Amino acid sequence: MHLSLEKLIQRLKHVAQLDNILNILHWDEKVNLPPNSATGRAEQIKALTEIAHREFTDPTIGELLEELNALPDESFSLPEKTIIRETRRDYLRAIKLPATFVAEKKTAESIGYHAWVKARESNDFSLFVPILEELLDLSKQEAAFVDPRIQAYDYHIDLHDQGLDAKIIQQLFIELKKDLLPLVKTILASSHKPRASILKNFPIETQKSFALLVAQKLGFDFSQGRLDVSVHPFCSGHSGDRRITTRFNENVPLDSLFSTIHEVGHALYEQGFAPENYGTPLGQAVGMAVHESQSRLWENQVGRSRAFWKFFEPLYRQQFPNALSSIDSEAFYKVINAVELNPIRVDSDEVTYNLHIILRFGLEKELFEGTVAVKDLREAWNQKSKELLQLTPKNDKEGVLQDIHWSGAAFGYFPSYTLGNMIAAQLWEVAKKTIPSLETSFEKGDFTPLLNWLRESIHQFGKQYRTQGLVQKVTGSSISTKPLINYLKERYLPLYGGK
Amino acid sequence: MHLSLEKLIQRLKHVAQLDNILNILHWDEKVNLPPNSATGRAEQIKALTEIAHREFTDPTIGELLEELNALPDESFSLPEKTIIRETRRDYLRAIKLPATFVAEKKTAESIGYHAWVKARESNDFSLFVPILEELLDLSKQEAAFVDPRIQAYDYHIDLHDQGLDAKIIQQLFIELKKDLLPLVKTILASSHKPRASILKNFPIETQKSFALLVAQKLGFDFSQGRLDVSVHPFCSGHSGDRRITTRFNENVPLDSLFSTIHEVGHALYEQGFAPENYGTPLGQAVGMAVHESQSRLWENQVGRSRAFWKFFEPLYRQQFPNALSSIDSEAFYKVINAVELNPIRVDSDEVTYNLHIILRFGLEKELFEGTVAVKDLREAWNQKSKELLQLTPKNDKEGVLQDIHWSGAAFGYFPSYTLGNMIAAQLWEVAKKTIPSLETSFEKGDFTPLLNWLRESIHQFGKQYRTQGLVQKVTGSSISTKPLINYLKERYLPLYGGK
Repeated sequence: MHLSLEKLIQRLKHVAQLDNILNILHWDEKVNLPPNSATGRAEQIKALTEIAHREFTDPTIGELLEELNALPDESFSLPEKTIIRETRRDYLRAIKLPATFVAEKKTAESIGYHAWVKARESNDFSLFVPILEELLDLSKQEAAFVDPRIQAYDYHIDLHDQGLDAKIIQQLFIELKKDLLPLVKTILASSHKPRASILKNFPIETQKSFALLVAQKLGFDFSQGRLDVSVHPFCSGHSGDRRITTRFNENVPLDSLFSTIHEVGHALYEQGFAPENYGTPLGQAVGMAVHESQSRLWENQVGRSRAFWKFFEPLYRQQFPNALSSIDSEAFYKVINAVELNPIRVDSDEVTYNLHIILRFGLEKELFEGTVAVKDLREAWNQKSKELLQLTPKNDKEGVLQDIHWSGAAFGYFPSYTLGNMIAAQLWEVAKKTIPSLETSFEKGDFTPLLNWLRESIHQFGKQYRTQGLVQKVTGSSISTKPLINYLKERYLPLYGGK
Repeated sequence: MHLSLEKLIQRLKHVAQLDNILNILHWDEKVNLPPNSATGRAEQIKALTEIAHREFTDPTIGELLEELNALPDESFSLPEKTIIRETRRDYLRAIKLPATFVAEKKTAESIGYHAWVKARESNDFSLFVPILEELLDLSKQEAAFVDPRIQAYDYHIDLHDQGLDAKIIQQLFIELKKDLLPLVKTILASSHKPRASILKNFPIETQKSFALLVAQKLGFDFSQGRLDVSVHPFCSGHSGDRRITTRFNENVPLDSLFSTIHEVGHALYEQGFAPENYGTPLGQAVGMAVHESQSRLWENQVGRSRAFWKFFEPLYRQQFPNALSSIDSEAFYKVINAVELNPIRVDSDEVTYNLHIILRFGLEKELFEGTVAVKDLREAWNQKSKELLQLTPKNDKEGVLQDIHWSGAAFGYFPSYTLGNMIAAQLWEVAKKTIPSLETSFEKGDFTPLLNWLRESIHQFGKQYRTQGLVQKVTGSSISTKPLINYLKERYLPLYGGK
């Protein structure tokens, strides 16, 4: 390996340690932090973010990058080129952001999170408005610092999914909506009305041990990971210490279970990087859409399948004999795949879920374009909700305050969920063709064939390909809505008596 | 305030944020870390320790200190002088330690902790020998870097308790041993033999909620603190986010309870600093002996008193009706104050506890003087144990591997426990004289009079006084063995029928 590249990697690994610490601080903030310790935590994150930014924007890194960039292309292997290309991209962006700005934004994000928690507790969006305005403004400023020529929202989309923009996403979403709305209509018109609410009294300790069992069976490595509880489930930590969370409710057992499987999907991706690549772009996810394709594939294509439950149902019944005694197998499967309009995104089925995302994408776009103001966001939300979901949220907790994302200025993240659903369906088509025995192995509780295929097709590459390139490489097509629609029809029309 | 002092304080608070993060990383390591994530954590701690060292040894801090030091004494208030004096002391020490050395030692400490855990699991001291040798060597090197003229062990004692040294401690310990050994002999000769082992089947969840209740009643602020579980109880975090741990065993309920009270005592000290002083020497403990005086005072003088249990016993019986049904009040009080020779320090009663410390102090002294080699430490331990405690440990877990301290190179810490016991007894004498209703308030579950007195007499000063100076100020005498001996005789001779 070229000496300058070695030096660069050493520097990157050093900065990665600081990022890993920041990850742990954020995780701890959401899992452990005492209620009145938020200010101190915000100061810690601010101080370390400033230092991490300073270490990464050290001119030595710039010099190494320019030196490597000037060398002929054939000096490097494809993975090596990836490290140089992606680091250069991040570096050139980072040096445009003043260290004080980076710290200011991080602090605002931390304040934003706690303001969001308080606003939710009070069920009052207006408490969240001032900090959300600031977060939006800081996010626009960030885009302007880096490249004043591109749209601020496109900048944030590109941060999550390199190469995508609002225009591409809008086209995909228009196409998806066209097929999705009639499908939802058919399903809701069906006389079949399974209700998740028939599941009651699932003891939390038992839910927890079942979630641990499922996570382990799917391949989550607990020797380098944990499962904890937080308000909003998430996957955090770093590759060598991957931490997922879920939440428990005695009367909503499938929420904790599918949240766990979802976060396990994220974690399996991160745990799939080679340890020697930790801290370099080869040990990083290609983007959030592909990340979500992993979590959604495990949650939906796998976790809601008959094959999955053929293995897990007997164990589940053993754990919850009373709660399930009056529900037969077919009824249980129908509850797992119940489609009901729900005001809450994370409680929604995989069909209507995408409408929630289309709603948020539209609002983010308008926030950035200035056609909706933050103070009017509740109203805009409720209006769009009526339009897309035929629902008006009862209150802010069920509406505009339900998601954590904006509290941390994670604008441009939401589209990744539905893009991830599309990619998941595309991958699922290929996986089933490539491994004919896939679902038979699930029935035996063996998920390694799928995991190995994902490791080989997706995980091992880190950022070597970009989103569209990777999807193209594995599936032979760029991101597309058809496989998702086909998959949804195949799973739901038989249940809901559609033609 | 002088502008340079303001600038200095700002710098100190910045460095304190990094130290606070390191505290959280250490806490997380002992409470949460997945088993195979230790290497990553060690790298994080190494990277951040290097940075914190670099930030604190920044020449700007040196310049500010020299500038402030050159100004006439009357330019500053007593608290301001404390900040300058103590920071200057720390700074002059820190700049003598190469950053690479500091990082190397931190890494060895992290490796040491995990090697200790593994050696304990295998019950085999020999697995711990190589890293302990390295830790001892690094500790000697550290002393030599800072001041090659003083004894290395004195350097480490001074780090924990400024102004004390091995000679002062040895004199105190000789005096203590002279009075303690006959007292232990009397107690053990008594026909009264209470056994803690009559306590059985205390459900852990109930133990936990009782521990939380006691912590809260004593004044622990859970809005800025937590109670968790770890192998070895400790108090960590930082003043605005104070974290204590304990451990639970169904058949040793008093262990978890008194460990909790002990750590609460530490935490109350830290939670007693004024928030505006966080990050400066005014928001730091004077030393470990005074720190231990707080934990031991709450654990022993308070927690094992009749007054304390007059309030808590009915609640305890309510929580554990079955386990306590056949034990009457007097028998229970005797179990709480049972004196039995025990190979484990942390399981020992407060009388024989001090013999454990005298043992460790003697060994540390010999390790540093070179008259005992690390590889011979098990043998030396077992021999001293026989001499002082009339016990030969059954195995390494009950002997030389029982304590965490050496695994983190915390040499010179052990003496602080018994010095703390002495100071606790001295403070207790004064507190009872000053507040005649002290024990009556305990009987009513009100511990604020004692806490307020400690806040005023000890906590508020941070490092304004040094150990001997503070003890002198509050009790009118330097550290002394008599009040401890008097207290022990007063509490234990009536129980053990001595004259």
